[in-house]
Amino acid sequence: MHDISKRILAGDVRGAARAITCIENDYPERAQILREIFPHTGRARLIGITGSPGAGKSSLVDVLIGFLRAQGLTVGVAAVDPTSPFTGGALLGDRVRMQHHAVDSGVFIRSMGTRGSLGGLSRNTKDAVRVMDAYGCDVVLIETVGVGQSELDVMNIADTTIVVLTPGGGDSVQAFKAGIMEIADLFVINKADLPGVGKLETEVEQMLDLVKHDAAWRPPVVKTISTQKQGIDELWQQVEKHHSFLKESGLWEERRSRHLREEVLDIVSYQVAQAIQQRLVSGSYAERLEAVAARREDPYSAAAEIVHSWFDLAEFRAK
Amino acid sequence: MHDISKRILAGDVRGAARAITCIENDYPERAQILREIFPHTGRARLIGITGSPGAGKSSLVDVLIGFLRAQGLTVGVAAVDPTSPFTGGALLGDRVRMQHHAVDSGVFIRSMGTRGSLGGLSRNTKDAVRVMDAYGCDVVLIETVGVGQSELDVMNIADTTIVVLTPGGGDSVQAFKAGIMEIADLFVINKADLPGVGKLETEVEQMLDLVKHDAAWRPPVVKTISTQKQGIDELWQQVEKHHSFLKESGLWEERRSRHLREEVLDIVSYQVAQAIQQRLVSGSYAERLEAVAARREDPYSAAAEIVHSWFDLAEFRAK
Repeated sequence: MHDISKRILAGDVRGAARAITCIENDYPERAQILREIFPHTGRARLIGITGSPGAGKSSLVDVLIGFLRAQGLTVGVAAVDPTSPFTGGALLGDRVRMQHHAVDSGVFIRSMGTRGSLGGLSRNTKDAVRVMDAYGCDVVLIETVGVGQSELDVMNIADTTIVVLTPGGGDSVQAFKAGIMEIADLFVINKADLPGVGKLETEVEQMLDLVKHDAAWRPPVVKTISTQKQGIDELWQQVEKHHSFLKESGLWEERRSRHLREEVLDIVSYQVAQAIQQRLVSGSYAERLEAVAARREDPYSAAAEIVHSWFDLAEFRAK
Repeated sequence: MHDISKRILAGDVRGAARAITCIENDYPERAQILREIFPHTGRARLIGITGSPGAGKSSLVDVLIGFLRAQGLTVGVAAVDPTSPFTGGALLGDRVRMQHHAVDSGVFIRSMGTRGSLGGLSRNTKDAVRVMDAYGCDVVLIETVGVGQSELDVMNIADTTIVVLTPGGGDSVQAFKAGIMEIADLFVINKADLPGVGKLETEVEQMLDLVKHDAAWRPPVVKTISTQKQGIDELWQQVEKHHSFLKESGLWEERRSRHLREEVLDIVSYQVAQAIQQRLVSGSYAERLEAVAARREDPYSAAAEIVHSWFDLAEFRAK
């Protein structure tokens, strides 16, 4: 067993941090560590928290950490800040607010950045969540700026997904457009001291009438004012209620199994995409790419030939 | 040549619409059509318009269409509304505003939806833009709800990318977090009749000092009030200025060539991901997936073996 794996399983915080660095930089030991810690995962509660920018997700997460810690639970936070594919940099202003948890060994916070695309962000986040699980976090909060596909994709691993909305600004309609209404198990109307709460609540309920969701679980709407720590007990009660619902209905097992199945596809796609990028960039196909760049060949034909040249077609075509 | 390709090149609007339907549904004729029309593309100006939800992108596009039509230019619009991966449905409320262009044969509007993930949305949008180009649109506006990676990815094909901001609400900071500041060639402060315009302008300028951009082109900031059709001339002047800059500096050719090169990678990744999904879902690996779902095997090992079984390793490993 890799030394980092041992350290994670022994509850060494620096071991866990090191593992996530390996994941983000795709170091060679990444695969080994993830394989080794896998049998020790599956215990943590995975809670997704998403919503449009400015909905107050970070401060809600902040207050929720305090609430869970007061109950003696250890908390992991994987915060997804999509960074630029161009500079590789990120502004992590919101994270500063969480600094007061930094001295608490029962809290493990990690901001996930990304370099390049190809699903790297969601892949890395899922793996980081697994590290937090193996490390011993009772609850892992997965916070995303939720409108893009990668953000939706990250939420696939959550047991319970919370969508955070704020009154005013047509937030609920935007959320619906972006397709996050359907993944919500629970709605939070944050900043519930602002005007327009009743209107937003009505809108959400109306949309819930339109949107497909599990017949036995209609997502409840909880009002919070995270700056005043209001509504957090009720929020967690509803999370617990959802957990009980999943467990009793058998959906918990079903979802977890489905997530694992999907994860195989996810990893395969990611690894293949990475391999493809390396191959294309590293020169083997440079001539072909130049022909396309000069418009002497169309990108569709070039791509098709590359795909065919890579696969054992007989094996691949046979279903 | 496929009948649909002929119709696109003859300027038949229903042919173009049919082609995009083939793209969105991934019909077998998709590849042939795209190959055939490719030599007739590259002429249209591709303008990306992005910004956070509520920034007024759709109404800006609406006014811009009117402006360009008044100049005798034909306009294509590819509007990206990420729809739910769960229901496959989309609410296209904003599109309703554009209905008055529906009777104008010089305007071709298409809302791009997506089913599933795997980069399908951005792939489909790029192909739809190519259809509009071949069909004869002088300008193609690519409108995205811009924060996720897929949205950034779509913008890779634009010659000029416009980032739309609105005063108030910390919009510019959020935009920066989401990494769209770096892809902007041009900023629009829309709803410039609202308070806070000066503050936002200052913020944008300060961020431009921080962010890497081409030394010879500092993105200008244009103020518009799209509901009153104000500032649209200046916006288009700046787009033209950027176009001249790209042409004169040689960057136009360079960008277009790079986009074509990247597109090959993009198509390869997309096709491989699709093939992988089909294979995994269709049963060949059902047993393995079940082992993972039951936690008897870890997803990393399962994925690694699947990847290896698919590639001709000797060929693939040799760089």
